[in-house]
Amino acid sequence: MIQITLPDNSVREYEWPVNGYEIAKSISNSLAKEVLSVSVNGEVWDLMRPINTSSTIKLNTWESREGKETFWHSSAHIMAEAIEFYYPGTKFGIGPTVDTGFYYDIDLPEGNVLTEKDLQKIEQKILELARQKNAIIRSEISKPEALKMFAEKNDGLKLELITELEDGTITLYNQGNFTDLCRGPHLPNTEYIKAIKLTSIAGAYWRGNEKNKMLTRVYGVAFPKQKMLEEYLLMLEEAKKRDHRKIGREMDLFAFSESVGQGLPLWLPKGTQLRLQLQDFLQKVQKKYGYEQVMTPHIGDVKLYKTSGHFEKYGKDSFQPISTPVEGEQYLLKPMNCPHHCEIYKVRPKSYKDLPVRMAEFGTVYRYEMSGELHGLTRVRSFTQDDAHIFCRPDQLKDEFKKVIDIVFIIFKALSFDNWTAQISLCDPNKPEKYIGTPENWEKAEQAIIEACEEKGLSTVTELGEAAFYGPKLDFMIKDALGRSWQLGTIQVDYNLPERFKLEYIGADDNRHQPVMIHRAPFGSMERFVAVLIEHTAGKFPLWLTPEQAVVLPISEKYNDYAKKVSDFLNNSDIRTVVDERNEKIGRKIRDNELKRIPYLLIVGENEAENETISVRRQGEGDKGIMKTGEFADFILKEVREQLSGLYN
Amino acid sequence: MIQITLPDNSVREYEWPVNGYEIAKSISNSLAKEVLSVSVNGEVWDLMRPINTSSTIKLNTWESREGKETFWHSSAHIMAEAIEFYYPGTKFGIGPTVDTGFYYDIDLPEGNVLTEKDLQKIEQKILELARQKNAIIRSEISKPEALKMFAEKNDGLKLELITELEDGTITLYNQGNFTDLCRGPHLPNTEYIKAIKLTSIAGAYWRGNEKNKMLTRVYGVAFPKQKMLEEYLLMLEEAKKRDHRKIGREMDLFAFSESVGQGLPLWLPKGTQLRLQLQDFLQKVQKKYGYEQVMTPHIGDVKLYKTSGHFEKYGKDSFQPISTPVEGEQYLLKPMNCPHHCEIYKVRPKSYKDLPVRMAEFGTVYRYEMSGELHGLTRVRSFTQDDAHIFCRPDQLKDEFKKVIDIVFIIFKALSFDNWTAQISLCDPNKPEKYIGTPENWEKAEQAIIEACEEKGLSTVTELGEAAFYGPKLDFMIKDALGRSWQLGTIQVDYNLPERFKLEYIGADDNRHQPVMIHRAPFGSMERFVAVLIEHTAGKFPLWLTPEQAVVLPISEKYNDYAKKVSDFLNNSDIRTVVDERNEKIGRKIRDNELKRIPYLLIVGENEAENETISVRRQGEGDKGIMKTGEFADFILKEVREQLSGLYN
Repeated sequence: MIQITLPDNSVREYEWPVNGYEIAKSISNSLAKEVLSVSVNGEVWDLMRPINTSSTIKLNTWESREGKETFWHSSAHIMAEAIEFYYPGTKFGIGPTVDTGFYYDIDLPEGNVLTEKDLQKIEQKILELARQKNAIIRSEISKPEALKMFAEKNDGLKLELITELEDGTITLYNQGNFTDLCRGPHLPNTEYIKAIKLTSIAGAYWRGNEKNKMLTRVYGVAFPKQKMLEEYLLMLEEAKKRDHRKIGREMDLFAFSESVGQGLPLWLPKGTQLRLQLQDFLQKVQKKYGYEQVMTPHIGDVKLYKTSGHFEKYGKDSFQPISTPVEGEQYLLKPMNCPHHCEIYKVRPKSYKDLPVRMAEFGTVYRYEMSGELHGLTRVRSFTQDDAHIFCRPDQLKDEFKKVIDIVFIIFKALSFDNWTAQISLCDPNKPEKYIGTPENWEKAEQAIIEACEEKGLSTVTELGEAAFYGPKLDFMIKDALGRSWQLGTIQVDYNLPERFKLEYIGADDNRHQPVMIHRAPFGSMERFVAVLIEHTAGKFPLWLTPEQAVVLPISEKYNDYAKKVSDFLNNSDIRTVVDERNEKIGRKIRDNELKRIPYLLIVGENEAENETISVRRQGEGDKGIMKTGEFADFILKEVREQLSGLYN
Repeated sequence: MIQITLPDNSVREYEWPVNGYEIAKSISNSLAKEVLSVSVNGEVWDLMRPINTSSTIKLNTWESREGKETFWHSSAHIMAEAIEFYYPGTKFGIGPTVDTGFYYDIDLPEGNVLTEKDLQKIEQKILELARQKNAIIRSEISKPEALKMFAEKNDGLKLELITELEDGTITLYNQGNFTDLCRGPHLPNTEYIKAIKLTSIAGAYWRGNEKNKMLTRVYGVAFPKQKMLEEYLLMLEEAKKRDHRKIGREMDLFAFSESVGQGLPLWLPKGTQLRLQLQDFLQKVQKKYGYEQVMTPHIGDVKLYKTSGHFEKYGKDSFQPISTPVEGEQYLLKPMNCPHHCEIYKVRPKSYKDLPVRMAEFGTVYRYEMSGELHGLTRVRSFTQDDAHIFCRPDQLKDEFKKVIDIVFIIFKALSFDNWTAQISLCDPNKPEKYIGTPENWEKAEQAIIEACEEKGLSTVTELGEAAFYGPKLDFMIKDALGRSWQLGTIQVDYNLPERFKLEYIGADDNRHQPVMIHRAPFGSMERFVAVLIEHTAGKFPLWLTPEQAVVLPISEKYNDYAKKVSDFLNNSDIRTVVDERNEKIGRKIRDNELKRIPYLLIVGENEAENETISVRRQGEGDKGIMKTGEFADFILKEVREQLSGLYN
């Protein structure tokens, strides 16, 4: 008999050997239908792979990331089979899963190019292969055998991959007429796949190196139900309309310039206004919570990153060091703000009474990304973190953690992110060697997080082994208006940097102690957050935040002066107002400004100028009647006040 | 007869040949006593050097930069003579003037080191040599002769310098027993020097290259009157007390860390508060003047700086390019914000109606300085400019210029810089080849500046030939509380970047035109400005600006709670207030907080807690009586309002 521990810590006994599918079936038939793979002691396995010893398992359905990955990984193999059917001799590179779906990098036989129509043909073939219910079978193979096999197929790409593998670790997966070099895991058979869409084709250098051959990358997505695909395609269409790059252009929020460089955003005046408004909001909240702002340079001596450990770990893949013309110094663009903040901590000796120190900075950092990975504001090479580091005593950790949770929820509330989940990531108790810091400190920190979440009434999921090597953490994911998940707001405990930077404080006992550090950035980065916010709101930002709150539309140029007067009055009342002075018909002006997502459109003509009034329209809602300008100012300021009420005062 | 044109454009005739001294004497005996050198057609000459052709001249007295430089340059030679007297065999490197005074880099004979006492001995010798009234005599020498002469002296440093000179351009200066290789100019004789102080000794690599030998750099300063030296030493003493590095430490404003890197300031919480307050102030002023904020990255593709011309001109001496780990891209830390702003200008096509565009950014830039040149916040490697670029039509230039002048004066007023001078720098009409842009545009731009200054009632001095190659400019110098001059607030017209970046707008005539650009940074940089402000105010910043406006001092720990209540109330009224909760005697608390330059000290004890009052002290002024907390809040807010009244609203 072997003992199987489930995520709720319940233990079940099974005859040896058992597999994931059998375990699921022993729980319920419907679960057996839905389960796609099984995590065994933290490693994702094929559902049918025998479990030989007592283990802790998790059954992965479509609802879990692991389940989806298994599903999409098998989909990629079946796509490869379909491609090989139509284009025998195709060489196959790698075929991983991505956020949504999968791709395969392929090298088509000389003279072949895939078109939209070819993709449809391949889709049909995939569905045909899926319906055949071909078993997907794992087998181990020796390195020489593997080399021989792919040499016979003349697949130089796979041969290159195999060369780098260690003998004894190589596995193949076969379904129908197709066998692939693969670590797995996979679905039991092809029939799970009920709907598939090949979404796009792109060029991609083999192994991301521009010196290599350009391969064809085919992207796809697959689902266990046809209806899911339909919903997904609808969502994609809506997402296209909400694409932050498109709305960013329409609203003049940000731009990129090829001469400045890829992935380096230029914040245009309205985007800057938006970003400063967000920063100002967070700064006020943080002030209430006792944070102090600092400012640090965007470079640091290489030795700073040797101390922090970043250089050893990421140096090779980062923007390369900056030399000085003489004196032989070497600097790095800062990839994070923490080392600088540690240096600020050290400027003055600290006593236990000085803690916690809460140090905040809107710090712009630089991280190299391959140009192919860049995407609008969500994947950039320079971004500004709403960073803060809390240096506290171990006994303060829980309270500080709770306060950070408060700040995260103030932000969610101010921006109407109502749909969120939270995950606590703890260390793997079976692999203490993976982590730095004493077990007592880990115990304390993990308890602090768990209790902080409990005391805040947070419903969380807990993942063992998902902690960073230097400390446990709490992650927030939000669902946007289209149901897409975005990770925001990580709160991370850190024992590593205080150790590496030899941070200390004098305790009540007159001895030296090491503070604990909390890293936190509720927005994550201003760039990514603004992108998420644009896609979540389709550019219709909350009134308090939106760069232009009102626009005055004179119905003809005759009323431009009066329009200017109204706008000046409103601006002086701290209502961000512009005038559309163009010589255009009023209908056109309304349409153009609705597209700019300005919440209030204030139309002025003869009547209004005479009576010192304005005719008010709410974007997307239409006419709101005639008001005195002062009346409107009170009205809009009240709306703003209500949105922010109680959030930082 | 030759004609001599004086700065006021009057012309005088003299028998050939004449010299500067004779011209001065022909004007007045007292002028002849004061004149130190003469500028002949823009080049500074020895007073006794014959002027052979009709020329435009300027007589340089101690009041002018040129006069002081001549004086200090001769002082350096006499110091060298004194050093050679005591240390025969000393090799002499270079001996230039600096902002105040001069230095000489010397290589003492093996085994000699200068001490404080040696400096006094040398000072005495210098005064003795000065009293000898030795003539300082210029002579031309051929290169072979010069080489021979210094080879005989065994002065390898001078030999190295001579090797790089062209034959026919080499001059010597001799006084008493000392002859130096030198371009001059110099005083007529040594007797002008009445007072001298050798201020410090430092090590300096020969020609600034660490691979070369370390020489001894002797700094000194000299004056034509003993009283001037005394005043200068007094000022130095006061300056030492006001040294922004010292006050910055005392007030916890900023710090440097060897691990982060030299010349890279870390803004501590209070310094950040101060800086943000300044930025916020300027931002409000700029908003009133129609500026829009943007934000751009701190790096740019090398090709951006090839377009701007910076790479060719400064690339070699700058922080070196940043490579990417793959894809072979090259970036530079941005040395200025203008190229990025030009790229933002180009994001959208512009019409004449869109101009002026006023684009502002608190942009942090990076410029390499030799470590020996770094000094506190006044000479750093990273600094944040309060930068803005105005893109306008030529016909808008004057108005825009006037508006920038307004902003400069709003700042001077807000910060009590009452003592300023302004200089207009125009092109040299005799050397049109030095400048880019058409003569008509130069004419227009220079007229715009001159008229703008006139219409603003500014008293200015005008310097021909001091314009940059790309446009004329207006500079403001302020005198601080110690009478020291600082350059602040340059307003620069630029035809070059619009040309290089091919900026354009569609005119009313439907044709493409090039906008004019104005660069302006009234603070210059936040770092340097804060340094000047600290030294000007000795850290006693205006109330509206100072990081901590009030501190509550409980007379014992019993009243900490009440102190906290007072502080919360004041902070909620937007008065930046802290509590000194330390367990210290009240006298000590008062002293410590006076040192921190907190303007209001609010003492609370039993009486105050009972009656809900505070006992108010003004820093440096003492007791101001007992007030209700609300009363005090009104009082301090009124003071702030009055300081800023009318400046941005």
